Amino acid sequence: MITVGIVGGSGYGAVELIRLLQHHPNVIIKYVFSHSKIDEPISKTFPHLNHIALNYTELNEQATSCDVIFFATPSNVSKHLVPNLINNGVKVIDLSGDFRLTDRNLYQTYYGEAAAEQDFLDSALYSIAEWSEIDSQRTKLIANPGCFPTSILLALHPLIAQNAIDVHSIIIDSKTGVSGAGRALAQHLHYAEMNENFSAYAIGNHKHKPEIEQYVSNIARTKCNVMFTPHLIPMTRGILSTIYVKLNEYMTAEHLHDIYKNNYEQKPFIRIRDLGEYPKTKEVYGSNFCDIGLYVDEKNQRAIIVSVIDNLVKGASGQAIQNLNLLYDLDETTGLNQLPIYP
Amino acid sequence: MITVGIVGGSGYGAVELIRLLQHHPNVIIKYVFSHSKIDEPISKTFPHLNHIALNYTELNEQATSCDVIFFATPSNVSKHLVPNLINNGVKVIDLSGDFRLTDRNLYQTYYGEAAAEQDFLDSALYSIAEWSEIDSQRTKLIANPGCFPTSILLALHPLIAQNAIDVHSIIIDSKTGVSGAGRALAQHLHYAEMNENFSAYAIGNHKHKPEIEQYVSNIARTKCNVMFTPHLIPMTRGILSTIYVKLNEYMTAEHLHDIYKNNYEQKPFIRIRDLGEYPKTKEVYGSNFCDIGLYVDEKNQRAIIVSVIDNLVKGASGQAIQNLNLLYDLDETTGLNQLPIYP
Amino acid sequence: MITVGIVGGSGYGAVELIRLLQHHPNVIIKYVFSHSKIDEPISKTFPHLNHIALNYTELNEQATSCDVIFFATPSNVSKHLVPNLINNGVKVIDLSGDFRLTDRNLYQTYYGEAAAEQDFLDSALYSIAEWSEIDSQRTKLIANPGCFPTSILLALHPLIAQNAIDVHSIIIDSKTGVSGAGRALAQHLHYAEMNENFSAYAIGNHKHKPEIEQYVSNIARTKCNVMFTPHLIPMTRGILSTIYVKLNEYMTAEHLHDIYKNNYEQKPFIRIRDLGEYPKTKEVYGSNFCDIGLYVDEKNQRAIIVSVIDNLVKGASGQAIQNLNLLYDLDETTGLNQLPIYP
Amino acid sequence: MITVGIVGGSGYGAVELIRLLQHHPNVIIKYVFSHSKIDEPISKTFPHLNHIALNYTELNEQATSCDVIFFATPSNVSKHLVPNLINNGVKVIDLSGDFRLTDRNLYQTYYGEAAAEQDFLDSALYSIAEWSEIDSQRTKLIANPGCFPTSILLALHPLIAQNAIDVHSIIIDSKTGVSGAGRALAQHLHYAEMNENFSAYAIGNHKHKPEIEQYVSNIARTKCNVMFTPHLIPMTRGILSTIYVKLNEYMTAEHLHDIYKNNYEQKPFIRIRDLGEYPKTKEVYGSNFCDIGLYVDEKNQRAIIVSVIDNLVKGASGQAIQNLNLLYDLDETTGLNQLPIYP
Repeated sequence: MITVGIVGGSGYGAVELIRLLQHHPNVIIKYVFSHSKIDEPISKTFPHLNHIALNYTELNEQATSCDVIFFATPSNVSKHLVPNLINNGVKVIDLSGDFRLTDRNLYQTYYGEAAAEQDFLDSALYSIAEWSEIDSQRTKLIANPGCFPTSILLALHPLIAQNAIDVHSIIIDSKTGVSGAGRALAQHLHYAEMNENFSAYAIGNHKHKPEIEQYVSNIARTKCNVMFTPHLIPMTRGILSTIYVKLNEYMTAEHLHDIYKNNYEQKPFIRIRDLGEYPKTKEVYGSNFCDIGLYVDEKNQRAIIVSVIDNLVKGASGQAIQNLNLLYDLDETTGLNQLPIYP
Repeated sequence: MITVGIVGGSGYGAVELIRLLQHHPNVIIKYVFSHSKIDEPISKTFPHLNHIALNYTELNEQATSCDVIFFATPSNVSKHLVPNLINNGVKVIDLSGDFRLTDRNLYQTYYGEAAAEQDFLDSALYSIAEWSEIDSQRTKLIANPGCFPTSILLALHPLIAQNAIDVHSIIIDSKTGVSGAGRALAQHLHYAEMNENFSAYAIGNHKHKPEIEQYVSNIARTKCNVMFTPHLIPMTRGILSTIYVKLNEYMTAEHLHDIYKNNYEQKPFIRIRDLGEYPKTKEVYGSNFCDIGLYVDEKNQRAIIVSVIDNLVKGASGQAIQNLNLLYDLDETTGLNQLPIYP
Repeated sequence: MITVGIVGGSGYGAVELIRLLQHHPNVIIKYVFSHSKIDEPISKTFPHLNHIALNYTELNEQATSCDVIFFATPSNVSKHLVPNLINNGVKVIDLSGDFRLTDRNLYQTYYGEAAAEQDFLDSALYSIAEWSEIDSQRTKLIANPGCFPTSILLALHPLIAQNAIDVHSIIIDSKTGVSGAGRALAQHLHYAEMNENFSAYAIGNHKHKPEIEQYVSNIARTKCNVMFTPHLIPMTRGILSTIYVKLNEYMTAEHLHDIYKNNYEQKPFIRIRDLGEYPKTKEVYGSNFCDIGLYVDEKNQRAIIVSVIDNLVKGASGQAIQNLNLLYDLDETTGLNQLPIYP
Repeated sequence: MITVGIVGGSGYGAVELIRLLQHHPNVIIKYVFSHSKIDEPISKTFPHLNHIALNYTELNEQATSCDVIFFATPSNVSKHLVPNLINNGVKVIDLSGDFRLTDRNLYQTYYGEAAAEQDFLDSALYSIAEWSEIDSQRTKLIANPGCFPTSILLALHPLIAQNAIDVHSIIIDSKTGVSGAGRALAQHLHYAEMNENFSAYAIGNHKHKPEIEQYVSNIARTKCNVMFTPHLIPMTRGILSTIYVKLNEYMTAEHLHDIYKNNYEQKPFIRIRDLGEYPKTKEVYGSNFCDIGLYVDEKNQRAIIVSVIDNLVKGASGQAIQNLNLLYDLDETTGLNQLPIYP
């Protein structure tokens, strides 16, 4: 059995890891760490876990007795703690942004603090699971992608890899449920103000923008900027990204569709919808699926890709477990075969 | 023109007073007070008022230049400020709970602090507008009823006044939209946790319980306790109260219906629904109406009364303006004839 | 392996059975029947099942090759089809109301059609799983309880069995998410009208009223009526029932709490909350739990019981599977150990 | 007084006209027509109008006794009825799409039926109120713009008129509350399925696409196509459009902002937000405002315009009344000065 610890135990990422890992046949949760709630029962913070006798623990040297530590923390936390764990032979899967950007200046600009050490940034593997290069022998530190980037990069990767689109034309209009903003209180997340309200935010300066650009640039082998506009939907879970691209040459909708079918036919969590059908966020609710719908404006050589994920599963904890599976050479679906909850 | 000031300018009560009073032909808003936001434009806190050039003001002696001051503050605020205003000839309509209970011990028990001075408690008029005894000459201080009590007492008054029910049998199951909890942040009001969630709270110790009991006891001329269970609905506005009573004697549904029709036929804001039809919260959204539906279990001599209001209008700011109208001998509907917004 | 068929395949009950049964180690879904969608892929109706290659089937004699047939149909369907199945040795778990009431007159009154044959009504076992008398040898036909009754009877059973309450005083105020109304279109279930709307409905004539009264009367060994008011909450899943009872004698809150703890300590799906804490619907979302909170007004010898369930799981498909487990002498939690989804 | 009649009385457009017109000092509603509900009280369909004694009427010759008829009907209705009214000297404001497109072929393609007669299409004035060329003497027939186009064209007009953008680069990502889909039942609008669900729809073939392109082409004096993707938000009211354009030349954010401030400073319903601030749908809820936020990516010479409206007010009934005011040389805000409801 793989023993794991979870840091950031009072947040949504952690509680979703707990929900999913309980079905995982190869994993045991050894510790859930929370420095603000040491020794408190988890059920005091999360009454839906009422029947589970598990207390929060202080994060200290005993963490090194775990095989893997998940960080489900805000930014600027894991960068301080990961080096010691890695040096002690513990593997780390970091759901925060601390090891995603290899350019320390970008981190400073978008996260407002100094980045992790360059050595660790270089050794960290940014892992969109379907396109991952995890090496179970060598990979020690996985930077689990952000929720928006996951929905976007799964949608873009096939076209970029195939050089089918103008990578300088990418416009991404993303919409997320409110749980993506985390559990910390804020006026705009107050129910009475967020309810029946839809808004754009952080245009031009969202933390996920450089993450998307880094990945796109790597695949395209040229430095790219993207337009990226996140929006908040008055609902709890789900991301839908609508992505506008220019095709490099004339392409029928059927051709585009084939590209996606071929790229993802071996990928159990990616479901390519038939032409004319677009996925809805609820159709992946609670599951690790990413569903993708496609539209081609043949006349104008443009395409629209619509992708949906559950931001807390495929966009965070689910993909983290999928990465764990890859790290241990398990079937990537292990523990992740929940169907979406509908309705 | 009646000049008014509003204390508690950064809360929902105040912003709803502003919305409604702008249509009032006899009122001018002179000041909106907020001690945490002095000199800030209101639109910084409430961007929906973007086109209105109005700044928050410090509450000081200039308040005494108003004819009327509305308090839309949390509890334990107005009790400190009202005496000086009254002594300076300003009339006060207090939307908080500070002057609702005449028994200082009850206030201490339910509000956790010392009550206002007994003199002012005695002179304050608790005013359910439809049953109010406002005297435009003598009334100086109006205790505007709480949102739950408004929905409940409008529903109960006719039956109690007519001695038609066992006043010791009253069971009240109330449900409110989240705006009733105000604008202050709290974990359970965080969108991701409140959304798609329904709960009971404060059973047996809600601040509105003694307020209901005081009124019922006064009308019934006997000391009564009620069972009162508030619930939170995942929506912004609206209260629905389901009230269970035992009838003192056999009564048909038609008879009960007639009692309500007769009591309220002159009351423009009370709409008694036909038998077999029950009001929904959305049918009064944004308006000052209270709609009432009735059911009689003739066999068991029990009745159920269902009432709905918009908690921020009839349950707070709307009724406050209605009370202002009565205080100035205006038609009680002045400035309050908005139709419900539907859908 | 137990082979099962599901009738009513285009409804929410069926799709929830599919979600839950896929994790069940002892069950194989052989057929999903739908007479309006014969040979269509399920994913056409339910795109969230996009990756599952499964077509709807016509219900005919091949149904008798299954071990168990679940009916997740509207009322007035299963009564016509069950006898033939039973006579062919197939076991039936009926999620509809057709075999719940033993009194054919009551069925006629509340369901508006003739009831099933008396023989089958008599042989059907109404099975609140925690209090069930399923006999794996003899039970052929299980009447799976309604969603409201499940939330209510689990809350009431301990007190009635112990003769602790006046069974003629029971007042039940229940609130349900909208999925309880099923998938058939109706104006009041149209999103724009149901959203931000809360209402009472079917007061005094809801189909679940006689079902509750039959069970209460059986346990109490005296004929009882209850007051029962259902309400619709603008959310998808979840029932919360607030139940008001008179205690037969003085009882402390701790004593009442002990009764529940003792009755349910061996029941894995019933979670009794600590005194002062009330369960919220979201805390059981997607799971088979029923959480119960308790309040005692010691002075007035009254109690309030608050229970929550997911109406589609414990209130329908989950309990049906729990009943299946009991019918096959499996651990009752088999396939049902999903944690609630939160947030 | 201007006497008006409303056709399509059982829909949301009509009921919103009723709500708004009751405050209009110059208008009397003479008839509300509904051919499916002749002689029924309006309150039977819309209980929130419970206190209003008004019955639906059959649309016949008496309609010609009105000064103005509003059509709040689905498409393919008004085209049959308008000619007779116009010929009888009645003015018409059509909220449907029947007279918006001057090219009959486009209508056939997008609406699936034959268009209105060319004469009437030519004489109809498509009126975005802020840019309208209504002539109170000559204008007889106003084609009230669609909800999406209103939010989009108010946002685009200043830049196109000023030749500031590449009109062939326009990408529009719009999101609407569910009331925009009207009152007719549909599975995807069923509460349990629409709730907590976000989706794109009608990509490439939405009825509003040719309407946007016609307007843009007219202003730009060159034939343009736009990319237009509508989405459904799980909420009742509000549209937010996020519009991506390429600037023809380098421009600072301040410069762009000035263009909007200058264009709209005399327009009471258009509120241009400060740079860095983006409007939310709730900030215009129930009002006739259109709020606009701006972002410039100076490095890449691109801009993003975010606009919000209430789809049922500025996007339908509110703008229709504004057009009525212009038609009668009244102040355009007459009857439309409601503040947004918040929260």
